[in-house]
Amino acid sequence: MKIVDAKVVVCSPGRNFATLKVITDEGAHGLGDATLNGRELAVASYLTDHVIPLLLGRDPSRIEDLWHELHKGAYWRGGPVTMSAIGAVDLALWDLKGKALDTPVHNLLGGAARRGVTVYGHANGTDVDAALDAARGYLDLGYEAVRLQCGVPGLDRTYGVGRGDLYYEPAQEGMPLQETWSTDAYLRMVPELFAAARDQLGWEVRLLHDVHHRLTPIEAARLGKSLEDYGLTWLEDAVPAELQEGFRLVRQHTTTPLAVGEVFNRITDCHTLITEQLIDYIRVTPAHIGGLTPLLRVAHLAELYHVRTGCHGPTDLSPVNLAASAHFGLAVHNFGLQEYMRHTPETDAVFPHAYTFADGMLHPGDAPGLGVDLDEDAAAAHPYRPAYLPVNRKLDGTVHSW
Amino acid sequence: MKIVDAKVVVCSPGRNFATLKVITDEGAHGLGDATLNGRELAVASYLTDHVIPLLLGRDPSRIEDLWHELHKGAYWRGGPVTMSAIGAVDLALWDLKGKALDTPVHNLLGGAARRGVTVYGHANGTDVDAALDAARGYLDLGYEAVRLQCGVPGLDRTYGVGRGDLYYEPAQEGMPLQETWSTDAYLRMVPELFAAARDQLGWEVRLLHDVHHRLTPIEAARLGKSLEDYGLTWLEDAVPAELQEGFRLVRQHTTTPLAVGEVFNRITDCHTLITEQLIDYIRVTPAHIGGLTPLLRVAHLAELYHVRTGCHGPTDLSPVNLAASAHFGLAVHNFGLQEYMRHTPETDAVFPHAYTFADGMLHPGDAPGLGVDLDEDAAAAHPYRPAYLPVNRKLDGTVHSW
Amino acid sequence: MKIVDAKVVVCSPGRNFATLKVITDEGAHGLGDATLNGRELAVASYLTDHVIPLLLGRDPSRIEDLWHELHKGAYWRGGPVTMSAIGAVDLALWDLKGKALDTPVHNLLGGAARRGVTVYGHANGTDVDAALDAARGYLDLGYEAVRLQCGVPGLDRTYGVGRGDLYYEPAQEGMPLQETWSTDAYLRMVPELFAAARDQLGWEVRLLHDVHHRLTPIEAARLGKSLEDYGLTWLEDAVPAELQEGFRLVRQHTTTPLAVGEVFNRITDCHTLITEQLIDYIRVTPAHIGGLTPLLRVAHLAELYHVRTGCHGPTDLSPVNLAASAHFGLAVHNFGLQEYMRHTPETDAVFPHAYTFADGMLHPGDAPGLGVDLDEDAAAAHPYRPAYLPVNRKLDGTVHSW
Amino acid sequence: MKIVDAKVVVCSPGRNFATLKVITDEGAHGLGDATLNGRELAVASYLTDHVIPLLLGRDPSRIEDLWHELHKGAYWRGGPVTMSAIGAVDLALWDLKGKALDTPVHNLLGGAARRGVTVYGHANGTDVDAALDAARGYLDLGYEAVRLQCGVPGLDRTYGVGRGDLYYEPAQEGMPLQETWSTDAYLRMVPELFAAARDQLGWEVRLLHDVHHRLTPIEAARLGKSLEDYGLTWLEDAVPAELQEGFRLVRQHTTTPLAVGEVFNRITDCHTLITEQLIDYIRVTPAHIGGLTPLLRVAHLAELYHVRTGCHGPTDLSPVNLAASAHFGLAVHNFGLQEYMRHTPETDAVFPHAYTFADGMLHPGDAPGLGVDLDEDAAAAHPYRPAYLPVNRKLDGTVHSW
Repeated sequence: MKIVDAKVVVCSPGRNFATLKVITDEGAHGLGDATLNGRELAVASYLTDHVIPLLLGRDPSRIEDLWHELHKGAYWRGGPVTMSAIGAVDLALWDLKGKALDTPVHNLLGGAARRGVTVYGHANGTDVDAALDAARGYLDLGYEAVRLQCGVPGLDRTYGVGRGDLYYEPAQEGMPLQETWSTDAYLRMVPELFAAARDQLGWEVRLLHDVHHRLTPIEAARLGKSLEDYGLTWLEDAVPAELQEGFRLVRQHTTTPLAVGEVFNRITDCHTLITEQLIDYIRVTPAHIGGLTPLLRVAHLAELYHVRTGCHGPTDLSPVNLAASAHFGLAVHNFGLQEYMRHTPETDAVFPHAYTFADGMLHPGDAPGLGVDLDEDAAAAHPYRPAYLPVNRKLDGTVHSW
Repeated sequence: MKIVDAKVVVCSPGRNFATLKVITDEGAHGLGDATLNGRELAVASYLTDHVIPLLLGRDPSRIEDLWHELHKGAYWRGGPVTMSAIGAVDLALWDLKGKALDTPVHNLLGGAARRGVTVYGHANGTDVDAALDAARGYLDLGYEAVRLQCGVPGLDRTYGVGRGDLYYEPAQEGMPLQETWSTDAYLRMVPELFAAARDQLGWEVRLLHDVHHRLTPIEAARLGKSLEDYGLTWLEDAVPAELQEGFRLVRQHTTTPLAVGEVFNRITDCHTLITEQLIDYIRVTPAHIGGLTPLLRVAHLAELYHVRTGCHGPTDLSPVNLAASAHFGLAVHNFGLQEYMRHTPETDAVFPHAYTFADGMLHPGDAPGLGVDLDEDAAAAHPYRPAYLPVNRKLDGTVHSW
Repeated sequence: MKIVDAKVVVCSPGRNFATLKVITDEGAHGLGDATLNGRELAVASYLTDHVIPLLLGRDPSRIEDLWHELHKGAYWRGGPVTMSAIGAVDLALWDLKGKALDTPVHNLLGGAARRGVTVYGHANGTDVDAALDAARGYLDLGYEAVRLQCGVPGLDRTYGVGRGDLYYEPAQEGMPLQETWSTDAYLRMVPELFAAARDQLGWEVRLLHDVHHRLTPIEAARLGKSLEDYGLTWLEDAVPAELQEGFRLVRQHTTTPLAVGEVFNRITDCHTLITEQLIDYIRVTPAHIGGLTPLLRVAHLAELYHVRTGCHGPTDLSPVNLAASAHFGLAVHNFGLQEYMRHTPETDAVFPHAYTFADGMLHPGDAPGLGVDLDEDAAAAHPYRPAYLPVNRKLDGTVHSW
Repeated sequence: MKIVDAKVVVCSPGRNFATLKVITDEGAHGLGDATLNGRELAVASYLTDHVIPLLLGRDPSRIEDLWHELHKGAYWRGGPVTMSAIGAVDLALWDLKGKALDTPVHNLLGGAARRGVTVYGHANGTDVDAALDAARGYLDLGYEAVRLQCGVPGLDRTYGVGRGDLYYEPAQEGMPLQETWSTDAYLRMVPELFAAARDQLGWEVRLLHDVHHRLTPIEAARLGKSLEDYGLTWLEDAVPAELQEGFRLVRQHTTTPLAVGEVFNRITDCHTLITEQLIDYIRVTPAHIGGLTPLLRVAHLAELYHVRTGCHGPTDLSPVNLAASAHFGLAVHNFGLQEYMRHTPETDAVFPHAYTFADGMLHPGDAPGLGVDLDEDAAAAHPYRPAYLPVNRKLDGTVHSW
């Protein structure tokens, strides 16, 4: 089997997706998600201009060899653009391997280790009541876990507060939205949100919260302590994690479980977090960590240190990535909890897929490979629309993590 | 697909092997190596009396699930007997998965990452000249690497000094052989052996040596330093490794590369050795670490820390285990060097196999699964013969590591 | 004195026990407990097929020499099967030595360091009230300490919740019982149990709780914190302990004392736990750690680091092991608290014994040796009945520690 | 002052360069080097499609603000493509600031701290004699320091061995060149090279060597020890540095000074290397670390820990980057040694520049800004030619670091 063609399809069925399609001489094709929200075309160029020529004529079954050739052969390693490109190739090759062997990818990863992949939904609201209403909506849909975010009094807009429906999308066309930030106001709000949540939603639902990298370690430590009475499943992205040892201080002060990883691109972005047991859930993304090949390494390292997995799974990655997360989550022993935002009907139409949601769980389905296809005609009807994620600034105008 | 039958076949075509055969309702069978040299029947009992009843009716494709059920479900975890039994199941299930998907196991592990698996041979001799003669024999056979062991002046018998042919087997029938030990005599001999080796064999051949757990850390540190001029590929089992931090002292004093692992049964037997970078080659065995499932975890951990793999591969494990080592070594990125002792013709007749040796390399072949079969009729002609590994004692009579 | 015969007796007077009987040319016999719950026949095979031939003709007084020969001479060291077999030999040899010198084993260990061995009982219940009722039953029997376990609302069956009498036995015939697990539900229940216990039972009774390896470090840390107000004597097996450093996080967050060790087989399974002072009680078992010989080493290391002993002592080990625990607990300086579950009358009939319970304490008695005998005729009336410990799965089907 | 236009110019005057040109409403323009060897168009896309729209209308004097907005505002941080793009912007803004104030950039960085920036040249040869001849050529040109690389006997091609003139360029058009690798052969060669060098070139010249990430820590430790007699100024890129703690082992065994950094993109890629004093020279590149803004932070951290700077400066970065290195090297206190490969005359024609070489030193000149211009007409005559860096494989076919 040889790769005879490959291309990147960029489309925008509600939001932008870049998809790598790898085609073999046997007529099979594999798909990989190459989406990097707000920087899609750079990944597309990395693939089209620099990687695809290297794939032609190669044996797609030699995933390990190709992965290391793309990784080490580029000389310049890591980072979101490079690893998203390599990740797209890796996912497409696993998809192809599954199809070549007529089996779902999860069977190649050791088979199902559970009935399905428990997910959580995003319950957002401009205030506490609205957030709890959103949470009830998820509970009605069968979710067992919800992430709660709500507006911060005094701030116009805040990360995680959407526009009122299931299809929240933070990126927007035109120039980046400007958000504002006050740590003091935020730290006062969050415990109130969770006190109300436990009061009104009870204790059966699992609750999560995403700090989105906006605190320092001591601030995150304070927040974690202030939430201990509410039994969170995790506090996410408490601190920007480029400096992994920055989590030591948070860890020292609170038993609130910690999750991080959606911006990581290499195992060395999290090996200290894991080996020092500074976190409880590692949330790397198949598409951004470089595919299933390195994702398994991260999961195996995490398993040794009592850290569970939970892939980043928002709608700014395509159904191809979500399917990969579902196959992975079904198969690895130390699966924890999967993020699941619903794609728009337009997106689902462009990416017909075998995975399904029921009873609070995703299941990847048993179609060969990843079980997702790309309707290129449908995709062509949704051309790329440049969009940016918001920029966040403190009240004094300082650029802050969004 | 369901498991409908399983049994353990114990035979002795030159030496004892225990083999697990798992049979499905589709008529396929998978093989796992359950051999534990000198303790074979305990593993056979573990499987026959306690594990096989749990397998009947189960879906063999769910390897991850079954592995953890056998591991955690036993309550009493780890150790050579338990993990050899679980390893036999795991190998048989990977063999079955490959056969079910009509593909060699190495393709399931990510495909070939190299042309073949470079091996080393055992060059043993009662004195330096005999050892170097044996080394030349391996070079004539195409080996690029040899492990050199030779008799220690003043000691009757020493580990690694065989009976003059390719089929060295340390276990023997009847009561255990009594060997004797003198660290002083040994530490004087080894540098002389390697000085002569470099003098007579030159520098193209890769040289290795096995201490076989018989030194303390400071003694091993001294030995490692005394061998630096001879550029060993590795010094093996320098110190008994139950206390992993025992390697720190060796590491601090010498740049001679260190290998260890043949007696390990769990990743926690080596995680400190790996994460502290105390070793350079991790030599765990597919059959004894619990199969390919945990072996991949060890390899992935090792890769992060610049540690290469090199499975233990003596003739006291069957061709089933050797095939697993070859599939694994072909597929993982951080493969180092594979031990390869030749099985006797009788053994090869009982275990027809797809792997081949050529040009200093093993290749697992492309037969579906592991590519090894069991000729039960041939096996039946070689009934079990109780045998023990030798016991080693210092000159004053103290029991010592063999 | 020479060993002239040895055999393993497997019987099931209520539950399965494997007992090693070693006989000397002087007509004395020593007994060792070789029971490994659910894997009994593998240990029996290890002894019968591989160890007993090595014992014949040997001087039973040379315990240290034989111990190291069995340990190092097997080459493959450690693990539950191997160390249970060696432990059975070691206990039998200490029993013989005591008989040869006509003195109880505790006298050989340095003599009694206290009046008796304080024990705790297992108070289990399907709900809080039932558990507290069971606790009152133990207090009525004179116990000063009870371990409290109770059912978790929403889960059908949970570890430690028996069938309503003193003779709780988790193993059952036929296929393993399937239990289910929810960490969230469990973490809500336990503080309520202990709040009720202190409220209703007062503060004179010492209270313990067994997590049975089912939490991650951060979950255990949270539990430990949530129990601080109730002054537990210990929280047992908070986290699976293969990764010893996993206890650091628990230790950092709570002053609730920690106990662990019942699944350990070697001193290197706990040396980090002890030297880093991560635990307060080391609960290894004489039979599973390899006998009294290594048990004393563990106790001595623990004493240096302010860690107390408390042998694992459930009914899935025979009266031989319980007697060894009692001799050990009477003699070592850093004794803490001994687990004591009552054997059934059938078991007591098979194993007539000198140890006695009174006033909340066990005393090993002053009979020579361990003070336990084996009535082989009675044993023969209770043939082996295969049984398994339960398998535990999370609500999503994932295999979990039981 | 406002940015009114910006564009990326890609040209290939001998090799490929990508250059960002930022134009203000006052008619000034600033230049930034956006070259990422072999992945140029991905950076160009990152800038053109995603970054340039954000620059229009912005005040170019607010470098700190724009830098953090591009870094944090992208959400996906770090890596070679992203940081090369941000680096190009940063360099262009510093160039503009210098021009706006009519002063050279080094004056903005605190002024000249020395007469000039001492450089080293690349002396390469297919064998030892050829390498030493090349070194003599550099000495004749006034260089005080040379990096020595030479062919490895038995290997066809090796990193650093060029085609015999000053203008060595490893990237080549068409598919990547395949190189081969043998650590054993390499480790034998290097000490011979440096023994000959000291013998023939004497001790006045400073000698360096680049391992180019091709060794494991223990191999690098051995090499470092074996070179101690030859007094190297530094051993470069001894080990792949994603795992920063991988340098501990090298450091422990040798006093040969260590340099690393050319593939780093963030300060967190080297903070452990610096704070643990594992290296002596930090060789990050202005263009790839994200510009002068983060480069100063790296230099300042390094100064605290006795680590000197030495920017990566090969010809696969344009004169814009080299000028930035020269301004930086002239100004920071802890400057060490600057790499200097000569660009081809065609490149110099496209990038007229103020920096000069004399007496073994570079001087950035005193032209305003960085002192480099872009002749767009000349650039247009050299259109982009796709090229790749080589891929390196071990003799068994395994992908290896190049």
